[in-house]
Amino acid sequence: MAQNVNAHNTGGPDAVVIGVDFGTLSGRAVVVRVADGAELGTAVHEYEHGVISDVLPGGTDPLAPETALQSPEDYRQVLRTAVPDAIAAAGVDPADIIGIGTDFTACTVMPVTREGTPLNELPGLADRPHAWPKLWKHHAAQREADDINALAASRGEKWLPRYGGRISSEWQFAKGLQVLREDPETYHRADRWIEAADWIVWELCGEETRNVCTAGYKGIHQDGAWPTTDFLGALDPAFATFAEDKLAHPLSQLGERAGHVTARAAAWTGIPEGVPVAVGNVDAHVTAATAQTTGTGRMLAIMGTSTCHVMNSDVLAEVPGMCGLALGGIAPGMWGYEAGQSGVGDIFAWFADSYVPPEYHERAREAGLSVHDLLSAMAAEAPVGSHGLVALDWHSGNRSVLVDHDLSGVLVGLTLATRPEEVYRALVEATAFGTRTIVEAFEAAGVPVDDFTVGGGMVRNPFVLQVYADVLDRPIRLVASEQSCAVGAAIHAAVAAGAHPDIHAASAAMGGVRADTVDPDPARAAAYDDLFALYTELHDHFGRGGSGSLHRLRALRNAARKGTR
Amino acid sequence: MAQNVNAHNTGGPDAVVIGVDFGTLSGRAVVVRVADGAELGTAVHEYEHGVISDVLPGGTDPLAPETALQSPEDYRQVLRTAVPDAIAAAGVDPADIIGIGTDFTACTVMPVTREGTPLNELPGLADRPHAWPKLWKHHAAQREADDINALAASRGEKWLPRYGGRISSEWQFAKGLQVLREDPETYHRADRWIEAADWIVWELCGEETRNVCTAGYKGIHQDGAWPTTDFLGALDPAFATFAEDKLAHPLSQLGERAGHVTARAAAWTGIPEGVPVAVGNVDAHVTAATAQTTGTGRMLAIMGTSTCHVMNSDVLAEVPGMCGLALGGIAPGMWGYEAGQSGVGDIFAWFADSYVPPEYHERAREAGLSVHDLLSAMAAEAPVGSHGLVALDWHSGNRSVLVDHDLSGVLVGLTLATRPEEVYRALVEATAFGTRTIVEAFEAAGVPVDDFTVGGGMVRNPFVLQVYADVLDRPIRLVASEQSCAVGAAIHAAVAAGAHPDIHAASAAMGGVRADTVDPDPARAAAYDDLFALYTELHDHFGRGGSGSLHRLRALRNAARKGTR
Repeated sequence: MAQNVNAHNTGGPDAVVIGVDFGTLSGRAVVVRVADGAELGTAVHEYEHGVISDVLPGGTDPLAPETALQSPEDYRQVLRTAVPDAIAAAGVDPADIIGIGTDFTACTVMPVTREGTPLNELPGLADRPHAWPKLWKHHAAQREADDINALAASRGEKWLPRYGGRISSEWQFAKGLQVLREDPETYHRADRWIEAADWIVWELCGEETRNVCTAGYKGIHQDGAWPTTDFLGALDPAFATFAEDKLAHPLSQLGERAGHVTARAAAWTGIPEGVPVAVGNVDAHVTAATAQTTGTGRMLAIMGTSTCHVMNSDVLAEVPGMCGLALGGIAPGMWGYEAGQSGVGDIFAWFADSYVPPEYHERAREAGLSVHDLLSAMAAEAPVGSHGLVALDWHSGNRSVLVDHDLSGVLVGLTLATRPEEVYRALVEATAFGTRTIVEAFEAAGVPVDDFTVGGGMVRNPFVLQVYADVLDRPIRLVASEQSCAVGAAIHAAVAAGAHPDIHAASAAMGGVRADTVDPDPARAAAYDDLFALYTELHDHFGRGGSGSLHRLRALRNAARKGTR
Repeated sequence: MAQNVNAHNTGGPDAVVIGVDFGTLSGRAVVVRVADGAELGTAVHEYEHGVISDVLPGGTDPLAPETALQSPEDYRQVLRTAVPDAIAAAGVDPADIIGIGTDFTACTVMPVTREGTPLNELPGLADRPHAWPKLWKHHAAQREADDINALAASRGEKWLPRYGGRISSEWQFAKGLQVLREDPETYHRADRWIEAADWIVWELCGEETRNVCTAGYKGIHQDGAWPTTDFLGALDPAFATFAEDKLAHPLSQLGERAGHVTARAAAWTGIPEGVPVAVGNVDAHVTAATAQTTGTGRMLAIMGTSTCHVMNSDVLAEVPGMCGLALGGIAPGMWGYEAGQSGVGDIFAWFADSYVPPEYHERAREAGLSVHDLLSAMAAEAPVGSHGLVALDWHSGNRSVLVDHDLSGVLVGLTLATRPEEVYRALVEATAFGTRTIVEAFEAAGVPVDDFTVGGGMVRNPFVLQVYADVLDRPIRLVASEQSCAVGAAIHAAVAAGAHPDIHAASAAMGGVRADTVDPDPARAAAYDDLFALYTELHDHFGRGGSGSLHRLRALRNAARKGTR
């Protein structure tokens, strides 16, 4: 494969690779042995500026609502601190380091010069919000996303169904159009509009590259092309050449070598100059390598505050409600599917934090448990359905399969005897039903889901995992690593270094799942079929046009809050 | 009017009457001045046995689920303690007492001998649960109610629509049929099957009477007749003569004199022998006199854990979902309508007790407020609809207008930003929407609702009252008395004594509402129209057959709990 022709030092038995995971609030580096994936050392660096949503660093003007920016210097600081710290913790000889790989939140995207300098670092631009990187959860470009979606739908753009019929306000085009509309001067100063995932690689190796993954999922790159100048010009004449001018670049496959560590980056990281650098990648997608789910039909759910589902397939289909589909988006040569649930662990946390009475907190304290664990223990033993409840898990809207962020949560079946642990369980079940809805949508579209693996923080929650196993009526495999993103980046580094022939082989050698699976109980699984039928009825009623009441409620809410009613 | 022909001592300016309110857990006596309704003294007696639901007094066998019994001796003890205590507290001369009236929970019903002796007091019957009075909330006769309803519907019994199409399991016939089926020996030992409301009057004056109110609302007495022996025999041949043998008796109008205090009752109470005793009555219905709502079209809502609506009208109509309709059921000569909401204050309490986190409890403690008051204060100022929520107040099912006890609560519009005070407000609003639904059902059926008065514990909750005023878009009048049931009983005593010509006049002289009303805010009222439209959509979807999901959930719950799934 392309990334291996240039292989040099693929290392001996002590060869290691570095994986660096750039998260929302911190970056984590891990040193992983190439031969077997052993994690030898790790270190974390918290971003000094975190999420910039109130005022710019050094500024005083309040930022617009829904703004979420970051500082590129925070990203560099991860290279300067977490990477050398991880190497030191691992106690490895830097000469044994044969590659470095990265993964990033996405779509986190930024305007830079043709040399790769972030615009906010140019003289006179530091006080312009639009000169700064926009974090994935910057939600201020909804109007632009709406315009893009409406125009694409009216023109029947054939890429639209690849995104479940809806481009997100979080993605490259909506955010770029917002910059043009609100700060055209900054827009025109930007030679390039680049994912942070690719920018950090540029910082490491001194060369611009563009990975297929973010281009496919967060840009609008399908079947080898960007949206046409005609389409973009219809949004705004000045936007016509957006893709041509600021995005276009040969795309690199995942696991390819982007370049080699520069002298500057070597000084930052302690990695020898010239070590191969892997092409940029995304947190969820690298994890497929850690989870050994790069083969066809192996769905990986990365479950934390929200859930991201990634799956490779040799089948091409348009699955209703998927978030994105990209050839090579997870591994070269395969169709990479992405789907998601916008609220999972954060729904459980919302309930546990704000809707649990003092005596429960006290009992948890006395028993040395978290409130979550107490609720789980209280809820676990009850027969399926005995709470009489069913919930819709739409507290943050619905990503898959409805792709509707104006939906909201529903709770049905309450009585005066309903206890908090019963509501908690109903919420857990609702997210499991949401996952089942996604799995069934894939299978109904002709894309088989052969097995199901869970990564992310929820692997430490046996109650939630058992509910999912019972609701899905499938055994659940669990990712073994506690730092599955950084390890996934490291696996990609090993491929880029040529230590393994491809991602599948590297994943087999370096990734891993726990020996034990979480298995469904046949009686509970059968009982959940009835509850799932009720979930589906409510889901379709509130989500597929049976009732517009959730949208009307949202509109009333927004009007009431703005005082425009 | 009939009750006045026999008037003797109607008293001077110091004349007083005694009202005794028999509640679920205690009885309260009040001494009221006939001239102006001044409350001169009051006393309460808590029932020793309260609600008997686990084992019989002196017994060890567990009672069947949903059983709720009481002890007749507890009722007598109210006469022996609370009445003399109230007289002492008032400091009145017993010679100034010109009458006594009572009101009772209903349907609280009991088997007695032809002398009025409760069967549980007969030798050998004290250990038989069915020999004891069944409290209104005894819910173990649902199967019997279902059978009665199914048969009545299949035969097109014309009394059925008078009860919203459904006889309650709480009422006389269902409870009586349960005794026959489960303990025929006790059933056949019962010469009479009598409301506690009438039995307590029998204890006071030594004569059996039957009031039109419980006969109409809790019995099935319509258009001058009980259900036919043919109908009852079709339920069970042994039940054919139930009404004829155990219920039939000339009915007395409310405010009539039942008889005079016996020597025994005089010794218990300290009321002189021979003082007139008013016909038995029901807590909600006597309160119309206290609230000055005995005129046509004046709806009184007695709001506490649940809400009971009573209204007189000169219009006869079948209002969908009303609980009952009885000629003279509230005041002689008028059509008395009853409707209800099965869950109101108990829904707020359920939420405040079990779904509010420790920091709220702490803040309430620091501010010297109840959790309810804190939630109310936090919720009160937000613009209508800004919480984005709408709830269905069916946590205990829906009495009016759906008459469906298998429904359950629904909460729609939740997000991760939803706060407890917003849910609390949505629950309060849901009960107000429920009331509006009832008011609109009356008006749509051609029964005008001219004004709206609130009594019961909720008169002390300005937040709830303001929501109701805004949702109903009507001024809300508030009953002035804090013991509106006992005062209502006293007003009926004054009529029975002949001190006032009828209930309307007595009510005008002795009842009262506060000078100030709670008035709607026009902007909020207009905003609530939109939310009410959403409530109505959900109400009809879940309650009128758009979706059977609440019933299916309930069936799944019941099966799961019984382990029969």
